[in-house]
Amino acid sequence: MNAPELTAFAGLAIQPADIDGAAARLAGVAHRTPVHTSRQADERTGGKLFFKCENFQRMGAFKFRGAYNALAQFDARQREHGVIAFSSGNHAQATALAARLLGMPSVIVMPTDSPAAKLAATREYQRGQRGSEVVLYDRYKEDREAIGRRLAEERGMTLIPPYDHPHVMAGQGTAAAELIDEVGPLDMLLVCLGGGGLLSGCAVAAQARVPGIEVIGVEPEAGNDIQQSLAAGRIVKIDTPRTIADGAQTQAAGLLTFPVMQRLVRRVVTVSDAQLVSTMRFFAERMKMVVEPTGALAAAAVLEGVVQPRGQRVGIIVSGGNVALPRYASLIGGGAGDATAT
Amino acid sequence: MNAPELTAFAGLAIQPADIDGAAARLAGVAHRTPVHTSRQADERTGGKLFFKCENFQRMGAFKFRGAYNALAQFDARQREHGVIAFSSGNHAQATALAARLLGMPSVIVMPTDSPAAKLAATREYQRGQRGSEVVLYDRYKEDREAIGRRLAEERGMTLIPPYDHPHVMAGQGTAAAELIDEVGPLDMLLVCLGGGGLLSGCAVAAQARVPGIEVIGVEPEAGNDIQQSLAAGRIVKIDTPRTIADGAQTQAAGLLTFPVMQRLVRRVVTVSDAQLVSTMRFFAERMKMVVEPTGALAAAAVLEGVVQPRGQRVGIIVSGGNVALPRYASLIGGGAGDATAT
Repeated sequence: MNAPELTAFAGLAIQPADIDGAAARLAGVAHRTPVHTSRQADERTGGKLFFKCENFQRMGAFKFRGAYNALAQFDARQREHGVIAFSSGNHAQATALAARLLGMPSVIVMPTDSPAAKLAATREYQRGQRGSEVVLYDRYKEDREAIGRRLAEERGMTLIPPYDHPHVMAGQGTAAAELIDEVGPLDMLLVCLGGGGLLSGCAVAAQARVPGIEVIGVEPEAGNDIQQSLAAGRIVKIDTPRTIADGAQTQAAGLLTFPVMQRLVRRVVTVSDAQLVSTMRFFAERMKMVVEPTGALAAAAVLEGVVQPRGQRVGIIVSGGNVALPRYASLIGGGAGDATAT
Repeated sequence: MNAPELTAFAGLAIQPADIDGAAARLAGVAHRTPVHTSRQADERTGGKLFFKCENFQRMGAFKFRGAYNALAQFDARQREHGVIAFSSGNHAQATALAARLLGMPSVIVMPTDSPAAKLAATREYQRGQRGSEVVLYDRYKEDREAIGRRLAEERGMTLIPPYDHPHVMAGQGTAAAELIDEVGPLDMLLVCLGGGGLLSGCAVAAQARVPGIEVIGVEPEAGNDIQQSLAAGRIVKIDTPRTIADGAQTQAAGLLTFPVMQRLVRRVVTVSDAQLVSTMRFFAERMKMVVEPTGALAAAAVLEGVVQPRGQRVGIIVSGGNVALPRYASLIGGGAGDATAT
């Protein structure tokens, strides 16, 4: 890559070389997930779609990439004391699994009302790992950040946030890097959008490979904070959105992810919960894949006609498949009424 | 391959070279489906499991392989008049799709009470194809074979049965061939078993690649006709079994498939409907895949402990993913009571 091309990334928190570094760390550790295609999806949308299946990633979501890339760069002292993370979702399991693989303790701070399955999965990854535990807090009475700071100080642990960290962002970008390296140049790349970790990493990876590619972020309709932020030119904070896309219930972009999105993302579109459910059904019925609501965001934008490719080659990141079976069954098997977030 | 090795297949309806021929015909037409692995499945079973995912095959099941391999060998007159098939299941869709791709008419004879989704899918594959139609019959009043014979005579069409045909058997065998060619030698291969088309083809492909490999067929508990037949040394016919594995509700082995199984299959085991449901849940929850009840047969035998690998390398054919969403949702989301066939 020559100098004029690199200026596209000047001043951003991550550079194309950071994605390459992350890819080297993840080689043989993360799955190189498959890319699926569907003639029916192509006929329906008018594009040539390539689905990068991160639901088949270790622990069921792309989050493993970023967590492992961050933890793998800890120095000796950090490794000894371990990692701390707040999360009731995929970042919890990703951090616990990455810590286990790297032989370090992990403390995951989760709300007392976290789904039992997620608690169990996180503890399963921590099993047998010294100094590892789940710390529960009451989300209505306690301040999780205060709990985290106290634990970090007392135990000397390093906090890894779910998205606003350069190593996390670079790790997530390897998903888009693998996709384009496998299928060749794309005209358009759609990425699920919560706090922007996946989108910012993927935007850097994609623009480095295909300068000018149209990178599109997809948010839930109920939580379009980044759409608003890009329009306003500053980070807009919203109330916790009510949406079935629980991985995208973020209130604001990150300080590091936002400038990357401002520079490298063409636009952000939104989809409704009903469109997410319709897309989850398409995945189950036609592509035989279990996709969680958040994981269906990017695909929904194309399959539901929000974005209309005209013969273009479109990459779609399917970000994860972690959804409790009773809830999943109710969403794909139920009537339209089940699509409403509660 | 030298002469002594080939004697293993002497007198059987298909030979290793027939699988190679089928593979050549299917190249670039059928998907080379991915092989998935699962650390959780390995930990639970004590084996190293390789899942060949035919649920990601075109039209959602391995049946496409056999149907296409058969239709692709039609002569000019046969192509002109087209193909006829009886099926309420995956063979219907496989035949309709293969006929369309080869530009020939297809008539599919289905019972009037076939699931609407399967009727619609079959008609979708026939759309725009001259002379193609679904012919409905009343399964309680009419003889489908008489209907088929009459149509075949009137229209000069060629009947392709769902399993008891050498070209169908050879086509199905390419699934095992691809699996072993990709992951290397296996100690054991488990295959879903209805009429024996998939099992006989896969047994030939596997024994040609790994002489002496332990090939195991897996039937539903309620319909173990082939287990009985192998014990009796002759084809035993049973009543249509009541099982959720609708693709394995066959009454008897084929005249061509049975001798192959007698020679090349070590044993046949059975699993219950409850074990199939438990396995479908494992696939959804842990491996993020939609698998139909019949498609879970082989995996259930290992995951439910009927067959216990001890550090062995085990191939498992996941045969399909075609199941109506409401039924699927009820099976994976429901209580144990939902597992009972009705």
